[in-house]
Amino acid sequence: MSEKRIIRIGLLGFGVVGQGVWKNIENNRQALEFRLGAQLQITEVVVRDMRKAREVAVPEAAYSEDPSRVVDNPDIDIVCELMGGTGLALDLTRRALRQGKIVVTANKALICEHGEELFALARQNGGHYFYEASVAGGIPIIKTIREALVANRFKLIFGILNGTSNYILTRMEREGLSFDSTLGDARKLGYVEADEALDLDGIDAAHKAVILAYLAHGKWVKLDAIICEGIREITGEDIEIAGQLGYKIKLLAVIVRDFEANELSVRLHPALISKKEIIAGVDEVYNGVSVTGDVVGTTVLIGRGAGQDATSSSVISDIADAVFMLQGAPAPVISEEDEAVYKQLADGLVLAPKDQLVGRYYLRIHVKDEQGVLAKISEILAKQHISFATVNQKELEDGTAKLMVTTHKTNETAIRSVKAALSAENSVIGLPFSIRIFDPLQ
Amino acid sequence: MSEKRIIRIGLLGFGVVGQGVWKNIENNRQALEFRLGAQLQITEVVVRDMRKAREVAVPEAAYSEDPSRVVDNPDIDIVCELMGGTGLALDLTRRALRQGKIVVTANKALICEHGEELFALARQNGGHYFYEASVAGGIPIIKTIREALVANRFKLIFGILNGTSNYILTRMEREGLSFDSTLGDARKLGYVEADEALDLDGIDAAHKAVILAYLAHGKWVKLDAIICEGIREITGEDIEIAGQLGYKIKLLAVIVRDFEANELSVRLHPALISKKEIIAGVDEVYNGVSVTGDVVGTTVLIGRGAGQDATSSSVISDIADAVFMLQGAPAPVISEEDEAVYKQLADGLVLAPKDQLVGRYYLRIHVKDEQGVLAKISEILAKQHISFATVNQKELEDGTAKLMVTTHKTNETAIRSVKAALSAENSVIGLPFSIRIFDPLQ
Repeated sequence: MSEKRIIRIGLLGFGVVGQGVWKNIENNRQALEFRLGAQLQITEVVVRDMRKAREVAVPEAAYSEDPSRVVDNPDIDIVCELMGGTGLALDLTRRALRQGKIVVTANKALICEHGEELFALARQNGGHYFYEASVAGGIPIIKTIREALVANRFKLIFGILNGTSNYILTRMEREGLSFDSTLGDARKLGYVEADEALDLDGIDAAHKAVILAYLAHGKWVKLDAIICEGIREITGEDIEIAGQLGYKIKLLAVIVRDFEANELSVRLHPALISKKEIIAGVDEVYNGVSVTGDVVGTTVLIGRGAGQDATSSSVISDIADAVFMLQGAPAPVISEEDEAVYKQLADGLVLAPKDQLVGRYYLRIHVKDEQGVLAKISEILAKQHISFATVNQKELEDGTAKLMVTTHKTNETAIRSVKAALSAENSVIGLPFSIRIFDPLQ
Repeated sequence: MSEKRIIRIGLLGFGVVGQGVWKNIENNRQALEFRLGAQLQITEVVVRDMRKAREVAVPEAAYSEDPSRVVDNPDIDIVCELMGGTGLALDLTRRALRQGKIVVTANKALICEHGEELFALARQNGGHYFYEASVAGGIPIIKTIREALVANRFKLIFGILNGTSNYILTRMEREGLSFDSTLGDARKLGYVEADEALDLDGIDAAHKAVILAYLAHGKWVKLDAIICEGIREITGEDIEIAGQLGYKIKLLAVIVRDFEANELSVRLHPALISKKEIIAGVDEVYNGVSVTGDVVGTTVLIGRGAGQDATSSSVISDIADAVFMLQGAPAPVISEEDEAVYKQLADGLVLAPKDQLVGRYYLRIHVKDEQGVLAKISEILAKQHISFATVNQKELEDGTAKLMVTTHKTNETAIRSVKAALSAENSVIGLPFSIRIFDPLQ
């Protein structure tokens, strides 16, 4: 057999994921190079601060603080952007793609904010932008939607895309712990991002939902145009009552395509999900995605959504795809004028207004324990044409009570009006809290 | 944009899957051709008997009983072998591959029996042999192991690979039905293959296990060298007692690689599996596969394992990969001498002797309800160094009883000796029945 081609890889960033890529290529080099029919060499590793202690020792000649040694280096075949952030990472990704390079990334925030520009840059310069590691860590959801399910149009994609919030919800459920004390543990275990809002307010998972929506439907959705709510307000009693009713509470990304109306709904929020759904059984730090295609039916993928090894498994999978691409014909160069074609898949596709979301809801209402309270509340709901499906009441020691109700089908606007009317009602203490109920077949 | 290249596809066989491929390419043609950057034309459909009524009407010019119009036709870019069987299908696949063609197949029996020869033929002639649809229908398990998890070495792969037997076990569990009456229903629904042994004796799932073992470990295993047992002897009380102990009974394919001993264990048999395992929750006709890689950890894929649409989704995914291959460089031609390289991945890898399997077991023993029976049985087990973990006894109306026991860890040889000794014992009626207990972390 002829000598294997050498593929030269440059890493931008050498944190947890970068070092994982290095280690795992070394550990499984023999099997990997056999499968790829090529030799892999990480010839450049660029970091912000070379003096910072790192677990993996990089040979001196390959180690620098100079990103141009990767992005402007004609010897580098594959650029791995593993530095994160949307500042320098954006500049360097642009520069590499403008030179027709293949870029592999794990940077969900960057894709979510600048993906439209970056994918176009890749096409217009004969390069490529790979991003398996940006969504759901080690789960091959990008490859599955892009390649394995290429025959399908996607009616529904939903799932759990943030491991930290799932870990917190799981421990709250299993151990009856409060949100705060579980969060404390998650922090100690290093599960929570430095910017906690990413995990706790659903932003990280919403980034991923936006990427999946683009991949499946060719439409870029702005983060501020979609429902994005986190898990901070969920209490142990919400989880408990949901459990009694046959549900778990999960932070769900939901992407629904209505082909008749040519409408797309993308959202990220906690939801009551029936325990019969496989995704409801995805606990701890695991992620899970359910994809319903018009041909294949429903396929579910579950795995580790984060962590050094799982994420680097996905980065290496993208490197492998890049190697095959490098061994094949050069990518076609698409002119800027022809870019219009890439909007074709999403032709006329409209983002569904978030206010018009229809569904069932769970409501937690703190009330004074007075006669006739339930009747008053029921009347307020009736004004918005909302009726109870279930009612649970829990007496508190201070003489007040919590009402946990689920509703029949209604919509966002009605629920918002009801919450406002309830909080204005004398018997109601504070603001009622609502959680959407997820109905996959709706 | 330049005119899209036309890719010409020839179908060998136009049964359920072939017609599904036709229909689903037609239904989603626009999105599909956009994604592939090519036009797809099924220009030849070859059947055994043109007079047979079919749901899909093929234009006369494309319809024939002459396979050479596909396999010997230089205009055909992709050959889809969807006829099944290991006779004519083998001849035609050989002929097509010898001419360097790309062949897409759903034929698990053919790969299981002749895969080693056929993959080598593909490599030696610059063609390719794609087989996503041969294992687990619409679940992209081949692509996931081959590409998405390319960075990994696979310690454990296990799962449910036969939908019919899973359907039967699910209904037996949910409705307390007997094997025979559930089988009757499955037959009426058309779920059972004409050759029922394929579904009921585990042969279909064992074919798939052999293919996955090759894909993950590069080693071809003969069907008669592995444990292959079906579900015919499972009773409602086995399922009931297993349920009480926290298990479900599933027909599992199990592929374990011991990297230290360089040993591979491949087997297919009913097993008690903890309800905590995600795979235990895969019910009805669904399939599910759990893959544990040394880098990614455990990833689980669940979906439809059979049926026209799910299977054709996988065939079309292979066609898409073939299209990318056709648009790239021609495949390298590997000489026969260089073929040795392809055994490298499995270098020295030994198939574990099936007798040496170690594990826990469930035993159902029919006994006369006499004093001291349990002591006698316990003694027989003790002679083989087997101890009880749990014991359940069920009195029958005829004065006999059934003992359902689970054991601590032992091995195949010991269990076989125990079953023989038990059946020779005067207090025991008939042959004891055993089911292995699946321990993923063993």
